[in-house]
Amino acid sequence: MTHDDILKAAGLTKDELSGGTLAVHSPIDGAEVARVHETDPADMPRVIAKAQEAFKAWRTVPAPRRGELVRLLGEELRAAKEELGAVVTLEAGKITSEGLGEVQEMIDICDFAVGLSRQIYGLTIASERPGHRMMETWHPLGPCAIITAFNFPVAVWCWNTALALVCGDPVIWKPSEKTPLTAIATMKIMDRALKRFGDAPEGLCQLVIGGPAIGEALVSSKDVPIVSATGSTRMGGIVGPKVSARWGRPILELGGNNAMIVAPSADLDMAVRAIVFSAVGTAGQRCTTLRRLIAHTSIKDDLVAKLTKAYASLPIGDPRKGTTLVGPLIDHASRDRMQAALEKAKSEGGTVHGGKVVAEGVPQGGAYVTPAIAEMPEQTDTVRTETFAPILYVMGYETLDEAIAIQNDVPQGLSSCIFTLNMREAEAFLSAAGSDCGIANVNIGPSGAEIGGAFGGEKETGGGRESGSDAWKGYMRRQTNTINYSAQLPLAQGVKFDF
Amino acid sequence: MTHDDILKAAGLTKDELSGGTLAVHSPIDGAEVARVHETDPADMPRVIAKAQEAFKAWRTVPAPRRGELVRLLGEELRAAKEELGAVVTLEAGKITSEGLGEVQEMIDICDFAVGLSRQIYGLTIASERPGHRMMETWHPLGPCAIITAFNFPVAVWCWNTALALVCGDPVIWKPSEKTPLTAIATMKIMDRALKRFGDAPEGLCQLVIGGPAIGEALVSSKDVPIVSATGSTRMGGIVGPKVSARWGRPILELGGNNAMIVAPSADLDMAVRAIVFSAVGTAGQRCTTLRRLIAHTSIKDDLVAKLTKAYASLPIGDPRKGTTLVGPLIDHASRDRMQAALEKAKSEGGTVHGGKVVAEGVPQGGAYVTPAIAEMPEQTDTVRTETFAPILYVMGYETLDEAIAIQNDVPQGLSSCIFTLNMREAEAFLSAAGSDCGIANVNIGPSGAEIGGAFGGEKETGGGRESGSDAWKGYMRRQTNTINYSAQLPLAQGVKFDF
Amino acid sequence: MTHDDILKAAGLTKDELSGGTLAVHSPIDGAEVARVHETDPADMPRVIAKAQEAFKAWRTVPAPRRGELVRLLGEELRAAKEELGAVVTLEAGKITSEGLGEVQEMIDICDFAVGLSRQIYGLTIASERPGHRMMETWHPLGPCAIITAFNFPVAVWCWNTALALVCGDPVIWKPSEKTPLTAIATMKIMDRALKRFGDAPEGLCQLVIGGPAIGEALVSSKDVPIVSATGSTRMGGIVGPKVSARWGRPILELGGNNAMIVAPSADLDMAVRAIVFSAVGTAGQRCTTLRRLIAHTSIKDDLVAKLTKAYASLPIGDPRKGTTLVGPLIDHASRDRMQAALEKAKSEGGTVHGGKVVAEGVPQGGAYVTPAIAEMPEQTDTVRTETFAPILYVMGYETLDEAIAIQNDVPQGLSSCIFTLNMREAEAFLSAAGSDCGIANVNIGPSGAEIGGAFGGEKETGGGRESGSDAWKGYMRRQTNTINYSAQLPLAQGVKFDF
Amino acid sequence: MTHDDILKAAGLTKDELSGGTLAVHSPIDGAEVARVHETDPADMPRVIAKAQEAFKAWRTVPAPRRGELVRLLGEELRAAKEELGAVVTLEAGKITSEGLGEVQEMIDICDFAVGLSRQIYGLTIASERPGHRMMETWHPLGPCAIITAFNFPVAVWCWNTALALVCGDPVIWKPSEKTPLTAIATMKIMDRALKRFGDAPEGLCQLVIGGPAIGEALVSSKDVPIVSATGSTRMGGIVGPKVSARWGRPILELGGNNAMIVAPSADLDMAVRAIVFSAVGTAGQRCTTLRRLIAHTSIKDDLVAKLTKAYASLPIGDPRKGTTLVGPLIDHASRDRMQAALEKAKSEGGTVHGGKVVAEGVPQGGAYVTPAIAEMPEQTDTVRTETFAPILYVMGYETLDEAIAIQNDVPQGLSSCIFTLNMREAEAFLSAAGSDCGIANVNIGPSGAEIGGAFGGEKETGGGRESGSDAWKGYMRRQTNTINYSAQLPLAQGVKFDF
Repeated sequence: MTHDDILKAAGLTKDELSGGTLAVHSPIDGAEVARVHETDPADMPRVIAKAQEAFKAWRTVPAPRRGELVRLLGEELRAAKEELGAVVTLEAGKITSEGLGEVQEMIDICDFAVGLSRQIYGLTIASERPGHRMMETWHPLGPCAIITAFNFPVAVWCWNTALALVCGDPVIWKPSEKTPLTAIATMKIMDRALKRFGDAPEGLCQLVIGGPAIGEALVSSKDVPIVSATGSTRMGGIVGPKVSARWGRPILELGGNNAMIVAPSADLDMAVRAIVFSAVGTAGQRCTTLRRLIAHTSIKDDLVAKLTKAYASLPIGDPRKGTTLVGPLIDHASRDRMQAALEKAKSEGGTVHGGKVVAEGVPQGGAYVTPAIAEMPEQTDTVRTETFAPILYVMGYETLDEAIAIQNDVPQGLSSCIFTLNMREAEAFLSAAGSDCGIANVNIGPSGAEIGGAFGGEKETGGGRESGSDAWKGYMRRQTNTINYSAQLPLAQGVKFDF
Repeated sequence: MTHDDILKAAGLTKDELSGGTLAVHSPIDGAEVARVHETDPADMPRVIAKAQEAFKAWRTVPAPRRGELVRLLGEELRAAKEELGAVVTLEAGKITSEGLGEVQEMIDICDFAVGLSRQIYGLTIASERPGHRMMETWHPLGPCAIITAFNFPVAVWCWNTALALVCGDPVIWKPSEKTPLTAIATMKIMDRALKRFGDAPEGLCQLVIGGPAIGEALVSSKDVPIVSATGSTRMGGIVGPKVSARWGRPILELGGNNAMIVAPSADLDMAVRAIVFSAVGTAGQRCTTLRRLIAHTSIKDDLVAKLTKAYASLPIGDPRKGTTLVGPLIDHASRDRMQAALEKAKSEGGTVHGGKVVAEGVPQGGAYVTPAIAEMPEQTDTVRTETFAPILYVMGYETLDEAIAIQNDVPQGLSSCIFTLNMREAEAFLSAAGSDCGIANVNIGPSGAEIGGAFGGEKETGGGRESGSDAWKGYMRRQTNTINYSAQLPLAQGVKFDF
Repeated sequence: MTHDDILKAAGLTKDELSGGTLAVHSPIDGAEVARVHETDPADMPRVIAKAQEAFKAWRTVPAPRRGELVRLLGEELRAAKEELGAVVTLEAGKITSEGLGEVQEMIDICDFAVGLSRQIYGLTIASERPGHRMMETWHPLGPCAIITAFNFPVAVWCWNTALALVCGDPVIWKPSEKTPLTAIATMKIMDRALKRFGDAPEGLCQLVIGGPAIGEALVSSKDVPIVSATGSTRMGGIVGPKVSARWGRPILELGGNNAMIVAPSADLDMAVRAIVFSAVGTAGQRCTTLRRLIAHTSIKDDLVAKLTKAYASLPIGDPRKGTTLVGPLIDHASRDRMQAALEKAKSEGGTVHGGKVVAEGVPQGGAYVTPAIAEMPEQTDTVRTETFAPILYVMGYETLDEAIAIQNDVPQGLSSCIFTLNMREAEAFLSAAGSDCGIANVNIGPSGAEIGGAFGGEKETGGGRESGSDAWKGYMRRQTNTINYSAQLPLAQGVKFDF
Repeated sequence: MTHDDILKAAGLTKDELSGGTLAVHSPIDGAEVARVHETDPADMPRVIAKAQEAFKAWRTVPAPRRGELVRLLGEELRAAKEELGAVVTLEAGKITSEGLGEVQEMIDICDFAVGLSRQIYGLTIASERPGHRMMETWHPLGPCAIITAFNFPVAVWCWNTALALVCGDPVIWKPSEKTPLTAIATMKIMDRALKRFGDAPEGLCQLVIGGPAIGEALVSSKDVPIVSATGSTRMGGIVGPKVSARWGRPILELGGNNAMIVAPSADLDMAVRAIVFSAVGTAGQRCTTLRRLIAHTSIKDDLVAKLTKAYASLPIGDPRKGTTLVGPLIDHASRDRMQAALEKAKSEGGTVHGGKVVAEGVPQGGAYVTPAIAEMPEQTDTVRTETFAPILYVMGYETLDEAIAIQNDVPQGLSSCIFTLNMREAEAFLSAAGSDCGIANVNIGPSGAEIGGAFGGEKETGGGRESGSDAWKGYMRRQTNTINYSAQLPLAQGVKFDF
């Protein structure tokens, strides 16, 4: 399908695609596919006020009813899966299967959130005082800003939105400037759900398009208590303290520098498959992309040989083709940063396989590369830095303790994994003295989390959690209640105060 | 008992009490009771390194064994309750019953934490992939700095320490410069527990004494992942963003501006008793002290009359005397701020009852006042500001919605309550559209939380939670694990990537 | 619609409706609407073996995938809501709105179960031994027999099925002999979901139709570990011990004798509306039907007067008509038992209002009655007995303690409620010394539970729990795991055993 | 110490030890050590009424205060550990370390229960109706009968009692007729705790001594809602249905037939140590004793050789001696049953090592045996039967599926384990298609559970759970509450009923 066909199928109108100030290019071929209208920063107070107004109404709508809106969203997403997935491919350059997978993730979280809407469990708690009752309840907190990155242009919005809506919070979405079309297409789906729902307050789900001024308005407003921001550590390092300083709550999903340890007992064939998907999938542009391979010296050479062979066989090119496994990088700047990183790695003693710019057999205008493997003599500064491209640094280790130390010795703390068939190694890796990441897997890559678990990482990854488990608590305020139904007034801790 | 007797009974040595640079005065009579040695800021890196070293060992000690240390601490606190309570009275000026109550709170949290040490429950979670297992585990996070305020000189340390120790984290305590003796006395008790325990790592529980430079060292060190700080909103507004900026985790317990709504159906006698304790207890220097009374106009005058009468009967004076209910303010500066606030309230149209400096019948040198009631025409700036002294601002209301709006219309969000016998009012107050505070009670005052619930507040109170419920999670890191024990490698969300 | 139209719309075929041995009559007019084929008791071993076979496969299907089947069931139920609701009306005599409400309840539990399918949370637990890990996981238990009663001919099946399927258990459904058509119609909907799902094992959801021999086969088979039985206390008193004796797990939902306490402060208009719905809805044939009214003497007469007036206005007749509020009893035997109970009540000193057989303005052949109010001098044997018909026994009380004692002084323990605006009374009713029922409400009737809570009751109600909260655990087995990944072998409790 | 010294040290008086009708023999030497007074069955109604009376008071005591009693019990147990452990050794024949370990287990559960006393968490739940609130609370259920067996004469009582007391339930203890002295000694410790506690209701903790008539009174009384019974499957098969039939709640901990699978990759030295402790500890008289060894054929012979060697080195004899590892069987009948089982095993083709009666070097009068290893050609009837003695049946396997099938193919379902270093095998064993037992371990024996997990088993083991996790729910009743604080009366599931 042509770009135009894809956008048309997703329901985008001429007016939405033209006449604006934000040029949108497809990474597939660098073509400008739209000029989108941006939100005027001066409008932001009005946007936020509308969200606050919606909040007043939405917070008292029973949660299971709020869940019904999310259920309808899930239905509409199921119906529009192909069309939306195609826009993801067009605008973010993801291969077709990954574009669809991203929509599936939206659907999954909707299902999860619907169930949650009849739970939102707080606690009843034993009180130490006769005739008293204690409980803990969770209440809506207020508008939630969702700042997303180009690499998951819709799933991250949906993770946040499905939970926020069920939790009683309106949302304001600021997508990446690189992927506004996916956002517009998603809002059309949301609007269909809202229409079927019937009586949701206006301003419940808003979209704002633009650059730093828009983001700044959300980050600095006291009326936006929650700011969920996905992106670079640099961005998060600014957003987090700013939101904290005005007593808001940041939910940060920032950079990862994800590693895999491959132990001597590992099923190497499985490891190879896992590595290739984790390191190369989404052209190395996932926050959970595998970037560091820590292989036992006894199998390292064999593993690298298998990998270089596998890498050589990967179909690179137009992500709209079903057979393609490696699509383009998001833009040429990204390609240049990758090349620079590889040069630096070499200067640090690294041996690089692949990592070449691809000019033939791919659409012209896109930034296509062969994924790179860089054998490193040690964990250098370059290895410690997240470069958002398909570079896999390989290092050796002798003891598991050493491997874990290498794994942990980076500023980021998102995802990690070990390949081993030895249960002692697997358990040690997951233990208190093991991986220091928010995600730690055994015999699967660091990438591709299920929505049932909490997603997020430690250290410079920002500490936020989204998706499953009790990540929903991040969207609510906790209230501790003590109810005295007696006619007495005993004090806690046996304090006496009689006058 | 004399000051010296009290300090001696608590085991403080001459060397600990003299020769230092930090002068400690008792608020009872202003007497200098010690000159305590301060920690050299240059030593802080060593202190922190010691905590990190202890962490390496402590995190792998099984949690129930860590709980054993906390159990022994509880035993030692039970044995030393009187002695430690007396130091609290001496140094913080709390009345005897409250001094003992504070130690009791330490004991309670120890009991709670011991039970917790066999739980620390994470989740096992259903995975969408065959031959896979998911779980979420909680691991120790690292050294925890505990910065405490003068008004709860020991309980807050123990809330944090009991949980942190069980969770596998060493602690570094920076007490208020006004209450180092209580801290030293507490460390002696902790040391006895450590000795009985046997093999805890050195540096597990450290005390640092001093001013801003000490605090700054803790706040800015990357090796102190958790900073639990109790104190003013001003302090928290600096600490929070600083800790966030270096990827640490702040747990903030800051100012409160706690209100009680008294409805027409309230049991007025109970309300009066609750108000007097909540507003006057600890001489109005609790973070949960009742500061605002929002009374229905139909009962407001009656209520104020009863209160002024009750206030007049309160024994003010030496807190060491068993009959005293109102002890001194922490210092003369505090008294002056109170006087200034009352003047400002008057200038805003308020009518003040009480609030006088007491010079007779009290120990000379202390800052004794009669607690104040200020009837206000509306919620003015002065009312919206937390003055750490026994001032109760009284306002009227007509409808419950109005009362809740007044209650919520302050920057702080710690504690709140309603007195009513009407279940609709009680429930509305606790609902999503009710109080916006972290604590909301019915028919008990805002003060005096049980340790079984999570303690803390919203907005400028800082958002932290300590003590019961799942507040322990604040001291740990969460890890989401997926374990593949099959020989297949399915991807989540049905993504295909076959090469 | 005629009976035939309704059955046709629900997809029942001629072959299903005729040629069998079980005559089905509509309570609307007593007409025989079908002769349904019964399951041969000799076939039961084969049925059970098929379920066991299905279990082997289904238990290893990932729970979220199992949830997908339940999600599809929910979709199909949404699509067939009207048609299935009409069969409920036809066969159970429920009014149209209640027929639809029952299908809605099926839909709700499907949504809930889908969310659950990504949870099924067990625990990870702190171990006392170094190098050890503990957890608790929940595994499928095996085939679940679901024995349902005529009054909720489909919702109860769905409560059990949605949870059982997600939990990994096949189901075998034995509906009431009075309502096989609703069951057949439901299975058609299930079959559509199964077909869309694709690869569910054969025998996952089976239907068996017939009498006691069929039930006995399920109750006594070791290969049916779970027997969920809804019906009379008499039935449950046989089933429970039998299932226990062969080490199975009974989930019993038996008789209720549900009461409402009306306090002096109650909103009487609300109380009247709640009472009428609770006592008269489903013609008094819900297990949660309000059967006992315990009214404060100060408002009792007023309340009875309002009720008798309201009762007089209730439209009685054909439940297919949208305006009808009281449909027929299930059969003439039921009507006779009602008459006998009223006679007995009179002989015990009761004054009866209503309770007459209705012959005019209603379809001939049905058992129509005016609902009855029986003012009783005390709680007699008749009051203590559940008569499955719209009889409301009214008694007076003076103190709340007395009212609670009356409420608790029956053998059943299902549902209960209080109407009061006094928070002390409301809380006392819900406290450890209050209602002894599994369900206790404030200001709503005992009937009409939401699916988010656990449903079931104490004492002769049988103790089972279904639907929300952690009722799903009843369908699974719990496994406690300790994993030693160290090379040491320490014993718990410090036991030494060195050889 | 002599028997008399031990009993005296534990505080037993002459009057308690003599003059009664129940002769108590020590298994050490068969000596009669006491003639204990039995409870008159005719007194049982009074005992039960007293418990019911205590319940009325105890249920309204705040749970943390109830926890204080358990905390004091823990303190007293710590103080009396040696003395009570010695009575366990004297009366049950356990070796010294195990006697002490049993008391430690009592202490551990007390610590756990104290923490629990500030939790007893129910849920607050999202309601589908505006102006409504849902929650689930847990209330005390009533007196709990605790029927214990000789092999854990005190720990099982304490598991039940610590939880029951915190949960608000009085307890009535019927110990084994073989171990009344341990029970009396324990009650003295409990009495000290009660005395320090101060105001517990009389009848909170009662002891009844005697035979079946006593047990029958507890099992059949409607006023004893909970019956926790530990013992044989035969006993449980009678108790369970009887309690169910009168609507009580049985908690059954019955027979086990616990297996270990030893995989080719197992650490054989660790396996040997685990096997010897699990199979021989407590002379094979634990419910979790290892009875079946399922060893891979590749290592089976080697393993048996190592085991027979290890068995040969075990010190058998007087359990009071610190060096003894194998004490006596409980009595001669037990020894005879062991001999009979070994004969039967031989007749089924088994080869038996050990299993001889020991006459020399052991106290005369006791039933001492060498523990037996029986290599079996297949899993015969004898293997499927639990013989309460140190017999270890050994079988071979080829594939893990086969091994799991053998493990599961017995009527009991208590404990199980696998020794393997292969993570796939370990996980498969713990999966839904793995062990069907309530306890499944990896690389530790089936015996020696920590109190933090729920303890109990499936199938003929009875299904009960005690100790950690949410086993406490077994001692309480669950109540689902919906509170309507609006002035509207919406019905669930959207049902309309307007008149």
